[in-house]
Amino acid sequence: KELELTPTSAVFDRSKMEDLIKRRFFYDQSFAIYGGITGQFDFGPMGCALKTNMLNLWRQFFVMEEQMLEVDCSILTPEPVLKASGHVDRFADFMVKDTKTGECFRLDHLIKNHLEKLGSDGAATPELKKECQDTITRLDGMTKDEMGAILRKYDMTAPLSGNDLSDPMEFNLMFGTQIGPTGLIKGFLRPETAQGIFVNFKRLLEFNHGKLPFAAAQIGNAFRNEISPRTGLIRVREFTMAEIEHFCDPNEKSHKKFSTVKDIKILLYSACDQMDGKSPKEVQLGEAVATGLVANETLGYFIGRIYSYLTWIGIDPKRLRFRQHMNNEMAHYATDCWDAEILTSYGWIECVGCADRSAYDLTQHSEATGLKLVAEKRLPSPKTVNTVEAVPNKPILGKAFKKEAKIITDKLSALSLDEVSKLADSLDKEGEFTVNAQGIDFKLTKEMVSVKSGSKVVHVEEITPCVIEPSFGIGRIMYSLLEHVFNVREADEQRCYFSFPASIAPIKCSVLPLSNKPDFVPFLSKIGSSLTQMGISYKVDDSSGSIGRRYARTDEIGVPFGITVDFDTLKTPHTVTLRERDSMKQVRMPIEDVAGVINDLSIRRVTWDDVLSKYPIFEQQEQ
Amino acid sequence: KELELTPTSAVFDRSKMEDLIKRRFFYDQSFAIYGGITGQFDFGPMGCALKTNMLNLWRQFFVMEEQMLEVDCSILTPEPVLKASGHVDRFADFMVKDTKTGECFRLDHLIKNHLEKLGSDGAATPELKKECQDTITRLDGMTKDEMGAILRKYDMTAPLSGNDLSDPMEFNLMFGTQIGPTGLIKGFLRPETAQGIFVNFKRLLEFNHGKLPFAAAQIGNAFRNEISPRTGLIRVREFTMAEIEHFCDPNEKSHKKFSTVKDIKILLYSACDQMDGKSPKEVQLGEAVATGLVANETLGYFIGRIYSYLTWIGIDPKRLRFRQHMNNEMAHYATDCWDAEILTSYGWIECVGCADRSAYDLTQHSEATGLKLVAEKRLPSPKTVNTVEAVPNKPILGKAFKKEAKIITDKLSALSLDEVSKLADSLDKEGEFTVNAQGIDFKLTKEMVSVKSGSKVVHVEEITPCVIEPSFGIGRIMYSLLEHVFNVREADEQRCYFSFPASIAPIKCSVLPLSNKPDFVPFLSKIGSSLTQMGISYKVDDSSGSIGRRYARTDEIGVPFGITVDFDTLKTPHTVTLRERDSMKQVRMPIEDVAGVINDLSIRRVTWDDVLSKYPIFEQQEQ
Repeated sequence: KELELTPTSAVFDRSKMEDLIKRRFFYDQSFAIYGGITGQFDFGPMGCALKTNMLNLWRQFFVMEEQMLEVDCSILTPEPVLKASGHVDRFADFMVKDTKTGECFRLDHLIKNHLEKLGSDGAATPELKKECQDTITRLDGMTKDEMGAILRKYDMTAPLSGNDLSDPMEFNLMFGTQIGPTGLIKGFLRPETAQGIFVNFKRLLEFNHGKLPFAAAQIGNAFRNEISPRTGLIRVREFTMAEIEHFCDPNEKSHKKFSTVKDIKILLYSACDQMDGKSPKEVQLGEAVATGLVANETLGYFIGRIYSYLTWIGIDPKRLRFRQHMNNEMAHYATDCWDAEILTSYGWIECVGCADRSAYDLTQHSEATGLKLVAEKRLPSPKTVNTVEAVPNKPILGKAFKKEAKIITDKLSALSLDEVSKLADSLDKEGEFTVNAQGIDFKLTKEMVSVKSGSKVVHVEEITPCVIEPSFGIGRIMYSLLEHVFNVREADEQRCYFSFPASIAPIKCSVLPLSNKPDFVPFLSKIGSSLTQMGISYKVDDSSGSIGRRYARTDEIGVPFGITVDFDTLKTPHTVTLRERDSMKQVRMPIEDVAGVINDLSIRRVTWDDVLSKYPIFEQQEQ
Repeated sequence: KELELTPTSAVFDRSKMEDLIKRRFFYDQSFAIYGGITGQFDFGPMGCALKTNMLNLWRQFFVMEEQMLEVDCSILTPEPVLKASGHVDRFADFMVKDTKTGECFRLDHLIKNHLEKLGSDGAATPELKKECQDTITRLDGMTKDEMGAILRKYDMTAPLSGNDLSDPMEFNLMFGTQIGPTGLIKGFLRPETAQGIFVNFKRLLEFNHGKLPFAAAQIGNAFRNEISPRTGLIRVREFTMAEIEHFCDPNEKSHKKFSTVKDIKILLYSACDQMDGKSPKEVQLGEAVATGLVANETLGYFIGRIYSYLTWIGIDPKRLRFRQHMNNEMAHYATDCWDAEILTSYGWIECVGCADRSAYDLTQHSEATGLKLVAEKRLPSPKTVNTVEAVPNKPILGKAFKKEAKIITDKLSALSLDEVSKLADSLDKEGEFTVNAQGIDFKLTKEMVSVKSGSKVVHVEEITPCVIEPSFGIGRIMYSLLEHVFNVREADEQRCYFSFPASIAPIKCSVLPLSNKPDFVPFLSKIGSSLTQMGISYKVDDSSGSIGRRYARTDEIGVPFGITVDFDTLKTPHTVTLRERDSMKQVRMPIEDVAGVINDLSIRRVTWDDVLSKYPIFEQQEQ
């Protein structure tokens, strides 16, 4: 069923596009003059401008529009933080090694490729085909031993060399390093930006005057030591993410702006439909939430916003779907998760994740640090509650534990009702109690801590917020976008171009003088300064090539508009021609109009059709 | 003499400012809930917005205005690249350890602090004072042994603990890691962004159609494992840099836009004046270049542009100077280097370096890779030259060296005239020649390579471009800026505020309704949408505090303009008041004017005085 959906990609000439990407330096392999390393890319002027424009638009679309709290946190992360988040123990892939050459392979990819080949072999029986397909579907949730069994069952060997493979081993994907000169503080390059937001939760809540809901956002680099990255920008070792953590009351996941997205129709691929072998369905978001297919309004709202952002920058909506995680792929704490997947010549690629992570992360960090990471919620009416409280005797604690006394008092104040009861019990019976804070056991005596019980009237309750997390892989989106806007002229298949929307095009406008005569210069500078004033990026091409050749060159890098200064420009009233890249149509207009028109087109205040109907068509051929 | 210049910083209440920075979450220590690590900071919403605005302005000021080629390169860098650049061998500081506690100290800082204390002691003789001062001045160029001798001479011990210190040792400041799953590829987090540009030189030159001069730029993070960072944002372990590499003909360092900066008067502190114990002098840039004080126009042009950028974002020109490197601090390959130093309460801080690095970096990478990193320069007239050329016998080389044959042929084609002569000589006499490429020795025989001589007419010569490098430390600039724009109201020293220029203020405008009445709502949304349309960031504060208290709150985070919606707004014609932060003056204007006026003020199309003369003053007091 996947194959039915892939006609466009099947005929897509990837090497043609990649040649253009390399030749005009959108991006290319890093350190190529040193032989390069797979999974690392440098963005050249065009790729860098495209990325900057995508990120600025993202910031406008999410941070500004939703008044999110944007942060910029450290990349180097000490081990305890990533221990708490689960990355130290679980952020790993299985790999096997070629026993002779030492080459490493990611095990699930190896199995998948092997079984796909096996299953698509003409000689394969229907049973074998089904078996291969079923195994591939179950791969995501498999343990090391299960995958090892498959490896042996099908007698797999190393690709190309055919050598034996080692037993599967776990490989943690984080890059490790030491922080500071002693070599004693272990750290990692963050594998995602999210943890930086979670550890700042208290500061952010305070910044928001203690109120829920609020969203924080971060744009930044993350690092994953991929085992054998081979698919261009799709799988890389360092990459830019844009992540949002929306903190809300776990019992109140409605969204006040949901109505603005409820009518959007989106291709949704539910877990059920995947299991039943059905196809994705187009569903209105309002209906998807009403029927419970999408778990709540906030999740639905973000799905809608992600859809709008992606299609706004130029992703083809027909090649965009949201796929729900199945139970075997979803983290145990997540309640619902949808990936925005984009169809490329590599197949459907996960580009944005949108997960309801419940209270998992804050709870983990709270447990690891002994600090409360909660928000206060006003009760419908005040209530009287019984209290027990562990009251530290600070002077005695201080004497006994010096600097560490503060860790203990922090921990004591964060104890739950249950834990205080246990403490009271233990002090009563044993005369002491052992409390663990920041990984250290502290033995406390009756002199150091007492238990006070009483009652009080409370107006608020403490809740650990739930987190909804949209997480964007900017490189993957950019790659998908490049495929979606890559075009070849019907008349000449050597002429390729990127039809970027003007809002994200690396350069908005080219300025082409028909001649190098000095008469032209004042008009060029007049146009240049009016474009600069409007903040429109432009490039003058005064090389001697024909206008057609020069247009072809600017088309390649996706410049949406071209201004030509010709001999008619010299006459009064001074006019220029304006050409639109996709239609290649041109109009003639007064020189003082042109910057404003391009600006209006870029921010979509007017369409090219509006321009065509307002100004006379300029008929001259390009060649 | 330094002290004469520091009256402002001497009375500067740093803790007051730092309290505000923490309280309103401009930035704060990273991972504080885990105890934190020195030298790492997270930027909160205000700091992040400030940084984004500074970088956007930088991009506009340098990349756009000068049509630089912006790139975005990998952070993880394989060892050979940083071996060639000199960082693996020389990017180190000396440190000593407390022999009992193991605490590490940066040696030069330790000596400097010790001698400053010693020299400023009342009991110090004039001889001792001078000795201390002289030693401090010479510190920068000292070897490990020289510093060790000083350590022993003055009998220094560990600060605070008073314990003995270890012998000095070298500590490389780069964070190391392994790239890929084998653990065999050693890599580092880049210590600067510049190398990413150098290794892309060929692609960038090609992008610029092979022509010099051109400049490439990069904004990105770099990492230095500082030994004991203690001075806030001034010395951190990860930081954002913005670097420019201007590539030009080594014999042609004039700059076509130099005339636009030649009249700027700048405080220059020449190496001579420093050695002679004189003060910095105010010099016109045109004169500085004409007299040879600044080595060339391009260097002078960038000094001028750096000055304009820094003062434009709000750095006080009176606390900004350019200090020339003295011989003992300048790298051996650099021909001239000026640091933009900004006066803060920590003293004069190096915030931007501006160096003429000659052809050093490209030469190093060319030698390490065996590839030519050169540009072609058209000769004034064609000339006939004798040529000798090493001609590889590819089939034989291929048989002998397999994959490595390409490395050899690359190297052979990159040999200089001299080297080819040596090769010819050696083949002639010994029958063989050993060539070293990528660190490996290859023995070549007569069968593998021959030497062809002849003559040809050449129109171009190959030159290795010279590099002028302005390098901005964004965090240091931001910290200095915060100090320069930090103010306390005369009437009430509890009321602090940041007087950011509107162009970089984190939030441009506050909107304060005088009441929560529903009548006000339509006016608030009207103002909100007109601000959004203009791209002006704003914040509504509809809390119940008095207007004065709410203004104080927005002043703290440096919001330059405040719109108040009051009861007069409800009357026709609908008007609002607009308040300016620094003067605290207010005017009343029609509601439809206000977004446009704020926009004009932000891009400095009009001044606040213009606004005061156009609209009636609103006299009501804030309290």
